[in-house]
Amino acid sequence: MIYFDHSATTKPSEEILDLYKKISTEYWYNSETLYNEGKRSNALYLKSYETVLKEMKLVNKKVLFTSGATEANNTALYGYIANFKNKDCELITSKIEHASVLKVYQDLEKQGFKVTYLDVDDEGNVDLEQLKKTLNNKTVLLSIMWVNNIIGSIQPIKEIINILKDYPRCKFHVDCVQGYGKIKPDFDFNDLDFITLSGHKLHGIKGTGCLIYTNNINLSFMKGGHQQDSIRPGTLDLAGAVCMAKTIQNAYKNYRFDDVKEKYLYLVKKLENCPNLILIRNHSSYSPYILNINIPSLRAETALHLLNEKGIIVGTGSACNSKSKDLDPALSSILKNKLNPINSIRISLDSSNTYEELDLLIKELSSMGGTK
Amino acid sequence: MIYFDHSATTKPSEEILDLYKKISTEYWYNSETLYNEGKRSNALYLKSYETVLKEMKLVNKKVLFTSGATEANNTALYGYIANFKNKDCELITSKIEHASVLKVYQDLEKQGFKVTYLDVDDEGNVDLEQLKKTLNNKTVLLSIMWVNNIIGSIQPIKEIINILKDYPRCKFHVDCVQGYGKIKPDFDFNDLDFITLSGHKLHGIKGTGCLIYTNNINLSFMKGGHQQDSIRPGTLDLAGAVCMAKTIQNAYKNYRFDDVKEKYLYLVKKLENCPNLILIRNHSSYSPYILNINIPSLRAETALHLLNEKGIIVGTGSACNSKSKDLDPALSSILKNKLNPINSIRISLDSSNTYEELDLLIKELSSMGGTK
Repeated sequence: MIYFDHSATTKPSEEILDLYKKISTEYWYNSETLYNEGKRSNALYLKSYETVLKEMKLVNKKVLFTSGATEANNTALYGYIANFKNKDCELITSKIEHASVLKVYQDLEKQGFKVTYLDVDDEGNVDLEQLKKTLNNKTVLLSIMWVNNIIGSIQPIKEIINILKDYPRCKFHVDCVQGYGKIKPDFDFNDLDFITLSGHKLHGIKGTGCLIYTNNINLSFMKGGHQQDSIRPGTLDLAGAVCMAKTIQNAYKNYRFDDVKEKYLYLVKKLENCPNLILIRNHSSYSPYILNINIPSLRAETALHLLNEKGIIVGTGSACNSKSKDLDPALSSILKNKLNPINSIRISLDSSNTYEELDLLIKELSSMGGTK
Repeated sequence: MIYFDHSATTKPSEEILDLYKKISTEYWYNSETLYNEGKRSNALYLKSYETVLKEMKLVNKKVLFTSGATEANNTALYGYIANFKNKDCELITSKIEHASVLKVYQDLEKQGFKVTYLDVDDEGNVDLEQLKKTLNNKTVLLSIMWVNNIIGSIQPIKEIINILKDYPRCKFHVDCVQGYGKIKPDFDFNDLDFITLSGHKLHGIKGTGCLIYTNNINLSFMKGGHQQDSIRPGTLDLAGAVCMAKTIQNAYKNYRFDDVKEKYLYLVKKLENCPNLILIRNHSSYSPYILNINIPSLRAETALHLLNEKGIIVGTGSACNSKSKDLDPALSSILKNKLNPINSIRISLDSSNTYEELDLLIKELSSMGGTK
């Protein structure tokens, strides 16, 4: 099978799976207990915690190991907004956030919070002028993803950090799931108040994620025991946490930006002149890991199945929404009414993809559907 | 090491760890995707789902695979109460629930909901007369654990189910973490509206749990993609779900109630006449897996360390609260002011514990501290 759906999930590495088994076997004692074996588990948790801070060069930040990015996003957003019970504040996000951000904002809006959803242009750039106009002294939370998961546009996080300097009350949450380990940031992670990471998108294991947040921020989401400062209670999945820290540590060691960019541009060059295809991409600020392709004459699901029969795996929009009958709201915001999101497939690369694989994909795609 | 803290966590079985690796390796494709490999992952998820229903003989129930019991409890309670935005309803629980239930109720009370915390007697029996007096047509949620995690008292779930027949509006949540697989229920799981289970307490893996709930109940907790009916969004940890289903399936296959009861009674008989110890136990309705021992002349933490030096591991109260400076609220409710929770250790057994191990524990405990 030729796999081009790395933004949906990746194959866990042997190293991580072996580590998982080793920790589960040797450090299975509950890390909250007071006997030596439990303390040994706890020491390993603290070591993983430090690994994350060190690897990302973080100071004055806390780390929560979560069951994934969705939980991390929910914990950051609901957890922080729980501080504003009187609802006398404003929240901002963009129209192309992942469902685990967008739907939290929609729920908060229903609860009575004032929410602004920033527009995006045809290339998936969030409207910074609108952001500047919307920000005010009541704004307490902004959530903008680093790399969009549907079309791969990179948001100008550094510029947003600068804009926010005039609004010290506004905390900045960045879903870094599709950027971390793939793109080198031009910003300092320390300038973000909340950072969401996922394990399984980086050859780690499913059910592992991470929320990093600024020291003095009060969060309230799940309730229970005293684990992880009572903010993420429940018996710590120590093996999961160790694997997550290792995944974070490995991510930039396996940095293959140039290689993937070359493959991406090869793909773009071969496909952009196909009369049946329209590439939905950001031309200036893009992640080479994601390429969205609209086939106006074919439903994405049909294209996916035709490719699947040829041994090629691609995605349709976000996997998190792929079974939904609704159109992907993020993609709709980008395509507006010019193209139908229902015709878009997503190619998401990994450096392990070969040129032979790309050629096969190109061959199949170029002959697919009618002309545009 | 002689391990007597099985209620805090258990060693994951080789079978489950091997299964985890196998699924993570062979079924790593995202189960929400539309290609054959993703559908194969999804089919395995559905099989695990069916395994849970079949094993527990459930009809008209849904299954959510969660990251553990804490998340399952939070999802059930917050998730259901989200239906009552006008707060014109009443909630009931007991004073000896796990922190992941008690603290949710406390938070809901702060939010403005009317909450009653049922008293318990000296043996950890929830006051059913108080329950009957408190229930009314406004009561929408009752949460009572099956087996208490601190002293092992079994609550009369069947009797409560009967009481609730007059209150059809009231949903019944039962945290079954310390009962499932250890005690055979005298009630039908179908008569519960919410059931919480944990993997790692039953030789499964950490980071896995399960919430089972009645079909027509609307739940709203985490927000995100369409996974697990949008109620528990986020990329499914398929390997975790498969392991959780297998753990549920194995639990009663490894049923060792009679063996553990014999060991428990052996322990009780040898310890109940020690002048330095007071056994905190339910004499009529108890789980033989848990024995709480109060050593009035010694802090539990000291006792734990002395035993640890002799190669024996015991717990102090709930592991989830063991590092807290606060007294365990559940244990305080049982002991009232007669004994100090700070002096209580918890022995939690497994059928793998031998009589030789029990004898060593008895020897150390009987000579520990002064006389009571």
